[in-house]
Amino acid sequence: MKIGLVGLGKMGNNMRARLKKSGIDVVGYDTNPDVSDVPDYAALAAALPAPRVVWVMVPAGRITQSVIDQLEQVLEEGDLIIDGGNSRFTEDEKHAKQLDPKGISFMDVGVSGGVWGLENGYGLMVGGSDDQVERVMPVFDALRPEGPRDEGFVHAGPVGAGHYTKMVHNGIEYAIMQAYAEGYELLHASDRGIDVTGTFKAWQRGTVVRSWLLELMVRALEQDPDFRDIDGYVDDSGEGRWTLEEAIDHAVPMPAISASIFARFVSRQEQSPAMQAVAALRNQFGGHAVKAAEVESAQQQHPTKR
Amino acid sequence: MKIGLVGLGKMGNNMRARLKKSGIDVVGYDTNPDVSDVPDYAALAAALPAPRVVWVMVPAGRITQSVIDQLEQVLEEGDLIIDGGNSRFTEDEKHAKQLDPKGISFMDVGVSGGVWGLENGYGLMVGGSDDQVERVMPVFDALRPEGPRDEGFVHAGPVGAGHYTKMVHNGIEYAIMQAYAEGYELLHASDRGIDVTGTFKAWQRGTVVRSWLLELMVRALEQDPDFRDIDGYVDDSGEGRWTLEEAIDHAVPMPAISASIFARFVSRQEQSPAMQAVAALRNQFGGHAVKAAEVESAQQQHPTKR
Amino acid sequence: MKIGLVGLGKMGNNMRARLKKSGIDVVGYDTNPDVSDVPDYAALAAALPAPRVVWVMVPAGRITQSVIDQLEQVLEEGDLIIDGGNSRFTEDEKHAKQLDPKGISFMDVGVSGGVWGLENGYGLMVGGSDDQVERVMPVFDALRPEGPRDEGFVHAGPVGAGHYTKMVHNGIEYAIMQAYAEGYELLHASDRGIDVTGTFKAWQRGTVVRSWLLELMVRALEQDPDFRDIDGYVDDSGEGRWTLEEAIDHAVPMPAISASIFARFVSRQEQSPAMQAVAALRNQFGGHAVKAAEVESAQQQHPTKR
Amino acid sequence: MKIGLVGLGKMGNNMRARLKKSGIDVVGYDTNPDVSDVPDYAALAAALPAPRVVWVMVPAGRITQSVIDQLEQVLEEGDLIIDGGNSRFTEDEKHAKQLDPKGISFMDVGVSGGVWGLENGYGLMVGGSDDQVERVMPVFDALRPEGPRDEGFVHAGPVGAGHYTKMVHNGIEYAIMQAYAEGYELLHASDRGIDVTGTFKAWQRGTVVRSWLLELMVRALEQDPDFRDIDGYVDDSGEGRWTLEEAIDHAVPMPAISASIFARFVSRQEQSPAMQAVAALRNQFGGHAVKAAEVESAQQQHPTKR
Repeated sequence: MKIGLVGLGKMGNNMRARLKKSGIDVVGYDTNPDVSDVPDYAALAAALPAPRVVWVMVPAGRITQSVIDQLEQVLEEGDLIIDGGNSRFTEDEKHAKQLDPKGISFMDVGVSGGVWGLENGYGLMVGGSDDQVERVMPVFDALRPEGPRDEGFVHAGPVGAGHYTKMVHNGIEYAIMQAYAEGYELLHASDRGIDVTGTFKAWQRGTVVRSWLLELMVRALEQDPDFRDIDGYVDDSGEGRWTLEEAIDHAVPMPAISASIFARFVSRQEQSPAMQAVAALRNQFGGHAVKAAEVESAQQQHPTKR
Repeated sequence: MKIGLVGLGKMGNNMRARLKKSGIDVVGYDTNPDVSDVPDYAALAAALPAPRVVWVMVPAGRITQSVIDQLEQVLEEGDLIIDGGNSRFTEDEKHAKQLDPKGISFMDVGVSGGVWGLENGYGLMVGGSDDQVERVMPVFDALRPEGPRDEGFVHAGPVGAGHYTKMVHNGIEYAIMQAYAEGYELLHASDRGIDVTGTFKAWQRGTVVRSWLLELMVRALEQDPDFRDIDGYVDDSGEGRWTLEEAIDHAVPMPAISASIFARFVSRQEQSPAMQAVAALRNQFGGHAVKAAEVESAQQQHPTKR
Repeated sequence: MKIGLVGLGKMGNNMRARLKKSGIDVVGYDTNPDVSDVPDYAALAAALPAPRVVWVMVPAGRITQSVIDQLEQVLEEGDLIIDGGNSRFTEDEKHAKQLDPKGISFMDVGVSGGVWGLENGYGLMVGGSDDQVERVMPVFDALRPEGPRDEGFVHAGPVGAGHYTKMVHNGIEYAIMQAYAEGYELLHASDRGIDVTGTFKAWQRGTVVRSWLLELMVRALEQDPDFRDIDGYVDDSGEGRWTLEEAIDHAVPMPAISASIFARFVSRQEQSPAMQAVAALRNQFGGHAVKAAEVESAQQQHPTKR
Repeated sequence: MKIGLVGLGKMGNNMRARLKKSGIDVVGYDTNPDVSDVPDYAALAAALPAPRVVWVMVPAGRITQSVIDQLEQVLEEGDLIIDGGNSRFTEDEKHAKQLDPKGISFMDVGVSGGVWGLENGYGLMVGGSDDQVERVMPVFDALRPEGPRDEGFVHAGPVGAGHYTKMVHNGIEYAIMQAYAEGYELLHASDRGIDVTGTFKAWQRGTVVRSWLLELMVRALEQDPDFRDIDGYVDDSGEGRWTLEEAIDHAVPMPAISASIFARFVSRQEQSPAMQAVAALRNQFGGHAVKAAEVESAQQQHPTKR
């Protein structure tokens, strides 16, 4: 099988490598000529046997839209575009509708696994029709981890279902990371002579909290036990927010996932306007010196704990 | 009526002034001789007619304990100690038991109102027996705001109930402050040409959210509309934590009040160990450069919004 | 001044009454002929002097849209439509654009105060141009509470700003209600002989938590101290959700307001799928009987507290 | 090696089986004579070679205390008691102090793994001295999972550290379960034709969220895909609460873990007093009929979505 792959960044490049290892022929295109196999979209189309399959692996939003627009120009009836990036699921139906008049079909795939996917395989969540899934199955089989197909791959539902389930996957991911992080902070703060790294390490077998993220936590702690070289600044790539918006839309309570998202928002603030407001309010009813003692002058003479 | 008052800090001093204005005779004692009416506890006891009433207005914890210990030495059977500070309610029963063998009785009062109490009167929540309450009522009437007695004073229950209800009051207070603060931050961030100060000002009459804290928010915004001179660092004086611990103990869900407390904890951290852990985890599965693009090299050429 | 008013439900009817009391002439239209002053939109337009002012006070969404569509048919260049309902702010710009080609201008007003507005006046947050505001000021002055204009009225910003600030107002309102509710539940659960209603009553003067909502809480508790006739089922009218979505969009942490919204979502669930999942998970690792003891058979013989 | 084991419930019984399989000789005692190897504590002590090792595996709190009290009567200088139950870490130091005068030493072990421990081995977190750990290592090696020792066992720190780290482990566990549960509820609610069970199943390999709890989730979903036979009622065994209390004590923000605990509290309420209060408040400002339309009479005629 021979497919096109647009986007040869870290993810795309690794995926190309994994596909080639399984005997899938890949023609890669990237705006960076140093890594691209072909000079432009026309050449990409020309290099693929019809009906073509083109996997798009570029950042969500404007870039994905631009790539699909350009592929629309060079592809033909019967060709298939797969969006494997982190697009919002609401985009998928739009893309399917955009391409439909030309007879180009569209499907979406949520891809999980990060930089480890090259070696471990990628968890795949697919949205599309049965026919589409069958057609691309050799590619999915090459990308997914070894083991039973249904433990690393799912045909989750119609177009959009791939990105939808990947979105929820990432929302869950945020809260799991937050769970370990809160536990870490408490162990770190407890000042009881606890072997924090050793504890996380020991949780890897037999315990209820064992997971792949825990293994990564152990790797991180072994590299830098007190996270001296890590700033507590955490971006979010959108899926968490979309998950929360979907929850709001469906009246689904989502306290832990929302807390994880808000913790990331806070982590990026130099100054919190909300907490400035709280400090200002305390100042208003407690007196002029914000951090000053509230009750007694004797406090300076009898230092108290809190 | 003549009472003793231990602790002439900001609160104690204001309370003394308000009591005097109502014709209550106050003998004040403080470790700071510049503000104290008497040189020591013995002189305080000697200056009061038996059976004595002594109001203690010092920081919770060690200082309150120390003051009660010293009063225990100089007071006599039939005397009454009132703890008007922010003690944890669990202390009250201990203090009552400690003083009981000497025939000294004990009651607790939660006092709300901050620096505004001198002018507006103090909201009072009292724990003790009916007899005790009746005995001290002239003092309560002098301290409480004008208006119907039961709108600024409550005999909340037995010993401990005063501090218990004041504790819950403060837990509620945290969440109300947080509510305005979150709303402020969103208005501040929305970048829609909104008159933020004017909006808070307009909420003072007719709206559902009007309150005294809102009035203080307006004062604060009028003094410093963007809180340029306020650092978003917020202490907590303990009652919020105790409220949350009580909630845990009674299996009472407390999501908003706990969120308000955690927001204060975060506001005091230079670095968040939890978010360092999350950043480290993302780094582990996303590649080495924590903030780097996750999907594609093309990102540098086609800047995308998020 | 003479204006049209579409929507004579509880809110519209009260507003008509308040306007009339201030000498504003109101022609009301409602689909319910029993309360309507005119039979249809055409008659409404005919009854008003040009340039006309029509205040729309109907449910947000489809009904508001339908009313604006019909007003567009009967109004003329120079006329002004005011949306005083709870529309999402994103609708306002659309409505302004829709009406612009016909020369009909549009402004939005957030109205707070509920059933108490008739007596107390309504808090008003207005979005529009200076000219529009000036033109409608007699109406605003009639509706707003007595006292300084800027304490019950704000020209918050351009079109949309009225509903935007009302939206944030409601988000804040949710969290303030949740704050009192959590405090109430703890006092209720504490089982310490506390006079719960009396405590809320006493918080009305002098305390930091005094507010209009607190006064309503006291009214509610005096009518039904243990809420025996109240089901803990709480709807939400949309503004809270929109506030949260705006917060997500601007990366504003909103832990207390989101908690308040989620608590409402939960309150409406007969069964929580999430908690079913947690129960199922516990079952999987703890054994077959979900609620059974986890550790020891002796438990049956030595009943333990938890 | 030969040890005593008090408590032959589900956990104790399984542990006995696993120990025996590894050649550890176990004398079990339980108040239930059907499962006990010896009739009483004296017989247990008599059956063990001095210096004795006795592992206690009974419910935390009163029962653990009672067992330790009784063992104190029958054991001798040089003997060692291990508390492997879910005791609060604050108990451990007390127990060590209680036993010290008789020369009986004490250590604590947090044990994770539930009913799967018999087959998979138990994750062990140990608090005690190096000497104690060395003495009991054959037992730990028999109980822990296969693989490197430090991936299923940790000498976490001094007495108390075993239960402390197990407590944090359980706090983390709560939030991870909540994370999957929130994701499940959204997928369940989304009504997009998504294969929910298939999606969870596919997350088991290659994805970022793969974990042992995810595998249990898949088992649960395969047994009962819509959880028709599961009530969303979730107990908590204490460790989560203690984790949160420790967090409060150390000013550690814990939004996700606290949310998970509160969700369990809510799950057990027939009626929520807090939400009754919110409903009562809405009633007060919105009119008498709590769920009635807020804005317009026309609402009955034009049904609107929300």
